[in-house]
Amino acid sequence: MTTSYLLSEIVARLGGQILGNAKVRITQIATLEAACSDQISFLTNSKYRGQLANTKAGAVILSGADADATDLPRIISDNPYAYFAKVSALLNPLPEVRPGIHPTATIGSGAQIDATACIAAMAVIGEMAKIGPQSMIGEGCCIGENVIIGSHARLYPRVVIYHDCVVGNNLIAHSGVVIGADGFGVALDQGCWIKIPQIGRVVIGDDVEIGANTTIDRGALSDTVIEDGVKLDNQIQVAHNVRIGAHTAIAGCVGIAGSTTIGRHCRIGGSAGILGHLHIADHVEIASFTLIGKSIREAGSYVGIFPFSKAEDWRKNSVHLRHMDELAGRIKKLEQQLKSLGTETLNSE
Amino acid sequence: MTTSYLLSEIVARLGGQILGNAKVRITQIATLEAACSDQISFLTNSKYRGQLANTKAGAVILSGADADATDLPRIISDNPYAYFAKVSALLNPLPEVRPGIHPTATIGSGAQIDATACIAAMAVIGEMAKIGPQSMIGEGCCIGENVIIGSHARLYPRVVIYHDCVVGNNLIAHSGVVIGADGFGVALDQGCWIKIPQIGRVVIGDDVEIGANTTIDRGALSDTVIEDGVKLDNQIQVAHNVRIGAHTAIAGCVGIAGSTTIGRHCRIGGSAGILGHLHIADHVEIASFTLIGKSIREAGSYVGIFPFSKAEDWRKNSVHLRHMDELAGRIKKLEQQLKSLGTETLNSE
Amino acid sequence: MTTSYLLSEIVARLGGQILGNAKVRITQIATLEAACSDQISFLTNSKYRGQLANTKAGAVILSGADADATDLPRIISDNPYAYFAKVSALLNPLPEVRPGIHPTATIGSGAQIDATACIAAMAVIGEMAKIGPQSMIGEGCCIGENVIIGSHARLYPRVVIYHDCVVGNNLIAHSGVVIGADGFGVALDQGCWIKIPQIGRVVIGDDVEIGANTTIDRGALSDTVIEDGVKLDNQIQVAHNVRIGAHTAIAGCVGIAGSTTIGRHCRIGGSAGILGHLHIADHVEIASFTLIGKSIREAGSYVGIFPFSKAEDWRKNSVHLRHMDELAGRIKKLEQQLKSLGTETLNSE
Repeated sequence: MTTSYLLSEIVARLGGQILGNAKVRITQIATLEAACSDQISFLTNSKYRGQLANTKAGAVILSGADADATDLPRIISDNPYAYFAKVSALLNPLPEVRPGIHPTATIGSGAQIDATACIAAMAVIGEMAKIGPQSMIGEGCCIGENVIIGSHARLYPRVVIYHDCVVGNNLIAHSGVVIGADGFGVALDQGCWIKIPQIGRVVIGDDVEIGANTTIDRGALSDTVIEDGVKLDNQIQVAHNVRIGAHTAIAGCVGIAGSTTIGRHCRIGGSAGILGHLHIADHVEIASFTLIGKSIREAGSYVGIFPFSKAEDWRKNSVHLRHMDELAGRIKKLEQQLKSLGTETLNSE
Repeated sequence: MTTSYLLSEIVARLGGQILGNAKVRITQIATLEAACSDQISFLTNSKYRGQLANTKAGAVILSGADADATDLPRIISDNPYAYFAKVSALLNPLPEVRPGIHPTATIGSGAQIDATACIAAMAVIGEMAKIGPQSMIGEGCCIGENVIIGSHARLYPRVVIYHDCVVGNNLIAHSGVVIGADGFGVALDQGCWIKIPQIGRVVIGDDVEIGANTTIDRGALSDTVIEDGVKLDNQIQVAHNVRIGAHTAIAGCVGIAGSTTIGRHCRIGGSAGILGHLHIADHVEIASFTLIGKSIREAGSYVGIFPFSKAEDWRKNSVHLRHMDELAGRIKKLEQQLKSLGTETLNSE
Repeated sequence: MTTSYLLSEIVARLGGQILGNAKVRITQIATLEAACSDQISFLTNSKYRGQLANTKAGAVILSGADADATDLPRIISDNPYAYFAKVSALLNPLPEVRPGIHPTATIGSGAQIDATACIAAMAVIGEMAKIGPQSMIGEGCCIGENVIIGSHARLYPRVVIYHDCVVGNNLIAHSGVVIGADGFGVALDQGCWIKIPQIGRVVIGDDVEIGANTTIDRGALSDTVIEDGVKLDNQIQVAHNVRIGAHTAIAGCVGIAGSTTIGRHCRIGGSAGILGHLHIADHVEIASFTLIGKSIREAGSYVGIFPFSKAEDWRKNSVHLRHMDELAGRIKKLEQQLKSLGTETLNSE
């Protein structure tokens, strides 16, 4: 019942070039260390060539540059890591969507659910919502009124999408995701906060994946926008009116404040933060744990990590950070003194 | 079917002064850039006066100081931003609560649900819980035993409130909120952790809003307390026995450790942290991404952000942070040497 | 109906030594400040001895060193804090698990649910899943296909466990926990991200507690592992293929990136972060808000907190952090100049 492919069948589907026996049958993918003889492995970094010697894999995916590093049956690819991803997808297809609406689900009036879609147990579909072909709405999901979800979506259990939000095709949303909750909009009125209604939506493009417990707030007046191909890890907070450019990838626990625009093809490390109303250019990399406090106009890599050390060293060193301006002033004064001293004592210098 | 108001009707309800045609009919609120002729916009910062020239808005809210900056019909207000919030609330009323208990909901014995309250599909109400007038318990919410919720609450889908917690009037809680889970209480016993039962509650005042996936733990022995008018954004963690003072606003992803007391009218930026057992005074502002490691006794603005830079600059600069104490020592030594050198060579100085 | 015990009964069960009247009846535990005459309190730090004078507690738990600090009936223990935890557990037993499957729950075919287990309202149990004796699956939980859960588990409402994950005995998982969602695995293919199937599981040992809205991702190829006795607070993100060693405790909002191994008996402070592919030794303590960017081979305490200050001081001081390398260069130059100056002017020195 397990899916399996000959090397030749894999190459016929995914491209690449075979060296060695093309008739090896592959049932799964694994690391070089763990792979068995019916499994294929991969080398994505020449640095680990040494591991090829001991692998028990039945075949290996590697780059042309590493083609001679093993005698095993192998597939040569320009991009072994992407090739590995594709082979794994071939060997590990998602379970088929079973069309139909579970008897415990609740469907609002006027909702349009494609006949090939699946609405799982305990899910709630709001009035006038539309669920596209082959889409799966997992157990206990709540889809608000007028929400539109494209085709081939996979919503894992307990995703919530608030009213009026729009989602493209191929969305993957993991459990606990909340799309379209109110943005954090309050105005101060005589010492108390009054709520600003959040009347925008969340609009999500195609091929987006959203990790567990990530939250994306609806816009205050206009929309929050997630463009095509964006990949969001777990526990990310996207505030109202943020726009995330196509094919940007963001690691876990990142917080993005309101009205910030992030470019395309950016990569943002875990637990980073971006303040509100900023513009981040395309192709920007932001390190983990870095707060971006002003706009970044130029592609490149940006870091703001405070280095850790042993507690006793940290105590000794960090105390000076509250006196940096004084230290800098003392250096300046030393320079002036030395200059005047040098001038006075060493006229020839 | 859309709500609409004449300018004169708005002012009759909300106060302020009209300049220009009071008969303009307004159906929605929008930014100066996006507004159409049946929409009202607002200017909250004189810096953006220039945008008034090109707006297509039918009317504008602005301060007396900006009253002459446009000929459009306009409402003059001392606080245009709060006025904007109120107009938006007028134009965008929440959907009415539909009284009644959905047939798929499960109601525990002895629960008291006001006849004007709404219990949505798949919700579970625990034994002896009380739900006040006009309150809406959204789809899939779980309300524990003995919980008391006041009037006009809006719990969006999938909020959980554990047993015995108490909530005032007008609570807004977004999806994924968890109120009253156990605090993180463990004691070390021969190298293993044993659990300390968390027997306090969470007690929440009136007019509190809690963002998506925010968690507020129950107290260990006494209660965790959220006072009136507190506004919490998404993904905030409030540990056991924290007290948050009235009208304090906290942005997303903030973590507050156990037994800390935060004053009234504070503002805390996104992803900030506050260690446990601290006291934060009233009217304190804490910047995003700042860790507060000791109590703050004085109102004011506090920051602890490590500035970001290009990766190559960061590498060059940050390496010295592990040697700050040595650098400071070298400055001191230079000062001493220079002093002794100056004394010896320049007696006249 | 409240549980109560004589001091003598407590000591008979939990050990320790009584001084004073052993017949005091105790109904609850409380702080020294709040305790009444039918309550027991505790002193875990001699620093707070002064509070003993005014307490109204009926009895106190304290160490031998503090035995003479009060005349109250008292229990002497080597570890008063652990003793307090045990007394509290005695006085505050969890509600009994009521065996049975709620009529609104949905049970997949082939699922094996122990006759003593409880499946609450709206819960969904996947095909072939196994739920052990005395385990409670709370309201709205979703347990995936083939999941195995041991005995005495307590899953609070709305926990999700994805397919194939394995959990030991005595798990406590709070609301909103997501176990086994896909890790964040993507490969770049001509500027777009393609998904890497996540085919590992999450494997959790015995006696683990997981706080509200914490997420633990399934492994990419092999498993993510949480060993026995690990305690996780709320809103923690554990990425794919992380291993957390036995009896490690992690505070709220921590993010741990992929393939990192954390040792046993570690303690990690709130909002800390650990980058991927690192090894953290046993008995390591990491401070709150600290990013660990390289492996730690040695037990001890590590910190990387940027100290906060008043905003105006921060502005003056932090600006120099972008010029640290220049400042260090200027110090070095001063040293060289002074040395050459000293040599030239003070040959005798």
